[in-house]
Amino acid sequence: MRIALAQLNYHIGDFENNVARICKTISDARKKQADLVIFSELSVCGYPPRDFLEFNDFIQKSRAAVENIALECQGISAIVGAPSVNHGPKGKPLFNSAFFLADGKIRNIVHKSLLPNYDIFDEYRYFEPNHLPYCLLEYKKYRFAVTICEDLWNISDDPLYIRNPMDEISPLNPDFVINIAASPFHYDQQEIRKKILVRNAMKYKVPFFYVNHVGGQTELLFDGGSMVVDAEGDICNEMKYFEEDLQVFNLNDFLYKKGNAGPVVTRKTGKIGLIHDALVMGIREYFMKMGFKKAILGLSGGIDSAVTLVLAAQALGSDNVKAILLPSRFSSDHSIRDAEDLARNVHVPYEIIPIESAFKTFEEILSPQFKGLPFNLTEENMQARIRAVILMALSNKFGYILLNTSNKSEAAVGYGTLYGDMCGGLSVLGDLYKTQVYDLANYINREQEIIPINSIVKPPSAELRTNQKDSDSLPDYNILDKILYAYIEQHKGPADLVKDGFDETLVNRVLKMVNTTEYKRYQTPPILRVSPKAFGMGRRMPIVAKYLS
Amino acid sequence: MRIALAQLNYHIGDFENNVARICKTISDARKKQADLVIFSELSVCGYPPRDFLEFNDFIQKSRAAVENIALECQGISAIVGAPSVNHGPKGKPLFNSAFFLADGKIRNIVHKSLLPNYDIFDEYRYFEPNHLPYCLLEYKKYRFAVTICEDLWNISDDPLYIRNPMDEISPLNPDFVINIAASPFHYDQQEIRKKILVRNAMKYKVPFFYVNHVGGQTELLFDGGSMVVDAEGDICNEMKYFEEDLQVFNLNDFLYKKGNAGPVVTRKTGKIGLIHDALVMGIREYFMKMGFKKAILGLSGGIDSAVTLVLAAQALGSDNVKAILLPSRFSSDHSIRDAEDLARNVHVPYEIIPIESAFKTFEEILSPQFKGLPFNLTEENMQARIRAVILMALSNKFGYILLNTSNKSEAAVGYGTLYGDMCGGLSVLGDLYKTQVYDLANYINREQEIIPINSIVKPPSAELRTNQKDSDSLPDYNILDKILYAYIEQHKGPADLVKDGFDETLVNRVLKMVNTTEYKRYQTPPILRVSPKAFGMGRRMPIVAKYLS
Repeated sequence: MRIALAQLNYHIGDFENNVARICKTISDARKKQADLVIFSELSVCGYPPRDFLEFNDFIQKSRAAVENIALECQGISAIVGAPSVNHGPKGKPLFNSAFFLADGKIRNIVHKSLLPNYDIFDEYRYFEPNHLPYCLLEYKKYRFAVTICEDLWNISDDPLYIRNPMDEISPLNPDFVINIAASPFHYDQQEIRKKILVRNAMKYKVPFFYVNHVGGQTELLFDGGSMVVDAEGDICNEMKYFEEDLQVFNLNDFLYKKGNAGPVVTRKTGKIGLIHDALVMGIREYFMKMGFKKAILGLSGGIDSAVTLVLAAQALGSDNVKAILLPSRFSSDHSIRDAEDLARNVHVPYEIIPIESAFKTFEEILSPQFKGLPFNLTEENMQARIRAVILMALSNKFGYILLNTSNKSEAAVGYGTLYGDMCGGLSVLGDLYKTQVYDLANYINREQEIIPINSIVKPPSAELRTNQKDSDSLPDYNILDKILYAYIEQHKGPADLVKDGFDETLVNRVLKMVNTTEYKRYQTPPILRVSPKAFGMGRRMPIVAKYLS
Repeated sequence: MRIALAQLNYHIGDFENNVARICKTISDARKKQADLVIFSELSVCGYPPRDFLEFNDFIQKSRAAVENIALECQGISAIVGAPSVNHGPKGKPLFNSAFFLADGKIRNIVHKSLLPNYDIFDEYRYFEPNHLPYCLLEYKKYRFAVTICEDLWNISDDPLYIRNPMDEISPLNPDFVINIAASPFHYDQQEIRKKILVRNAMKYKVPFFYVNHVGGQTELLFDGGSMVVDAEGDICNEMKYFEEDLQVFNLNDFLYKKGNAGPVVTRKTGKIGLIHDALVMGIREYFMKMGFKKAILGLSGGIDSAVTLVLAAQALGSDNVKAILLPSRFSSDHSIRDAEDLARNVHVPYEIIPIESAFKTFEEILSPQFKGLPFNLTEENMQARIRAVILMALSNKFGYILLNTSNKSEAAVGYGTLYGDMCGGLSVLGDLYKTQVYDLANYINREQEIIPINSIVKPPSAELRTNQKDSDSLPDYNILDKILYAYIEQHKGPADLVKDGFDETLVNRVLKMVNTTEYKRYQTPPILRVSPKAFGMGRRMPIVAKYLS
């Protein structure tokens, strides 16, 4: 028996296109003598479909799509993922299901038992967990089990769920186990995912065929990395990352001995390289799936907009990116020079549009109200918002999409201007702390100086008042980022942080900044997610609250 | 036995303040000879605490708060709501619990069995459902059951959950059943809530003591309306709406006969009156709990900003609201007149700040780029954004909070300018369709003309180009709103809508507008929720998708 793993990129709700891709792939797999081709979780409708699942029309279209795909399964079988209707008298209206298709028909439907409902996941919002006992499917004399993503993940010492599907499947003695997944990327996720698969294979002594999504779904990045793990827990085949892939395996190679059917991909890049590749894919995917071609951004000469520009150029091509320098009376000469150097280095066209006349006009307009009052944060914010007006005007007139250049440190402490530098259709660096942005800049420069070294070494500044430095308002990023990581990613409280050696006054100040600026993050553009805890759907905080604030 | 229902307003995460309020109320109830005082769901930490529940520090502080409240329970017992730790080896780390406090101690802890995880609810994200068999609590020789909100709601013919707690509690023959709730307002919710309670009382023939939250939690509005329902299913006491309330009842009045211990509140207001009261409370609560006093908004002479201004003045006092008229070259004389009339009617101070000079400046700044290109949506958006710059500058300089004046029809079809009229700290009307905004305007004018009649009768216009009317871009609101309601609130698909008699081309056009403008709604301020399906946390849609679009 030959098994194909089809690691494809789907467009949420685009049934026509998704079905066409799946059918084409079934046909390709058939040509490669595959007997069974496996697609990922909710492949038919795309993942995550979110509240589209509450529309009967969506569910019906999804079912019709599955039936169309089944027609393609002649002389070959397939497994696809789609929602299915709960016809029982009780429980949520849907299941998250795997459909086994053969001989032109839906032969079996298996439901997901463990529904992730944490971080960015909301599956219990829509789906009833499987309550049925597991049974094996059969094809060409082989007996196998089908599991869906989280079904394999309850293997830790502190299990999140009461049930563990593999404990029920294992006694049935399957020849192999399939897992169809939609497991989004973060910088540690590949290692975690591999460990989970290996741990299952070693514990249950059965080979696993694992198929993951690939591609971007707004903020969620799916990195692929589908794999086969043999019954001894060795990863025999690791498929491509951040790209579609189709590979066909001989089941026999994995049944009785350590498999060795294909090359194990060795990741050439470390954590920061992974982040880089994920972000480039994320930008490209957002634009492609939204039907956009061109990006615009404000280039300040600072590190954040520099890194964003390079990633955008790599994702979309230099010709499709436009940089705008928007100097004010507080911009330094070196900032403009650094920005121009960068634009030239990456061959991105740029224009300089000074904002002084607009700033003066607003000062005049507001002079009756502001008379006698000192220049303060208001005027700083005003400059940022004037820039936004200009960038959005160019965006509207020429169809550019504005890229947001804020980083996670700024977003965390509210060091940014709502409707100013916090604008944009997509936040590229919003899940990277400032110190990680530097790491990424150095990674980009690993072979040659693309980002001017001056943008990397100079003290960060918003340049919204004379001689302003970030360090006037914020602790040193090396300390700030450590506190933020401990609080946001690790959920440590103030007592833990003090125990870790951070200054108590500083800790309280930082946590208060985070917790009182939730209202700003609520209006932030979607942020490409590369960490285990990004701002956005995965971190849901009350705005009105009084906790550590 | 005398039972007190304590309908209080809590501040999320403000343990000190919440504990003080609860202890004060216990003391007040004791003075009124109460034996048991009941507080609402998660009263100790406030509802919804969202991801604060993922912080151990938060859980520990909550537990300490419960223990402090227990100390106050001498000669009186109390039930409060708080998270509790799941000490079992499996499942989510927390329970959503009711703590029964007596003699200075925690006497019992009862966990919630049914965890709502739809619309704005995310309880399965944090909590393990109760798996224990129910048992009764005892105090002063009476035996009673404690349930938590959703535990009573699985009584429909199409049950959402497998388990039904009352089916397990009823055979134990409790003398009465307590339900502590955090049931947020929408315009139909009071009737639904009463029906659920009555249905339970009639089915299980036992009196129910129901305590709800009151107050605003950002977008969620809790309306109170705590009540006692006797064993025959008659609502004997309906407590205040939109206000705190404490009432003490003799249990004997409800045990063996139809209760008649207090006045049944008859709601004087219909649906639109409820919406009015909810919005006024929502504004007041947002400002009070955020520590803000003063609001600012742009007053256009149109209906949306007019209604917003009146509600703000009612919530905060006229002196705490500032109206800014921001006429452009396209503003009509009557708009300015209508806006001034309104401001005078409600005694709100206003200023006129024309935007022409700023508009001209941006035209000049962008003239190299825009040369030869016609005036279009770009210039329209630019005017809206210039207004935002001015309003936000005043907000920043003087500490006003900008109120957003967009309505649900506009938000649904994307008829608004991001970073322009879509700005603001809080959206007041974002859950009201345009036709409902007119209803609310007429309600406000029910006794005298507060909103100039001209603002109500003139054709709606954004006045961003010559002779612009909303009807140039949008279908008539009477039709548009019906389609939007059927799609958004009722989840009808295009085929259903055509079957309902709407024109197919129009249906497809409207649904496409809704589904392609998700990116705008993602960056919208929080919206006071008055309908069963508001934009925001309760409606989660992919941005990148291709469905009905």
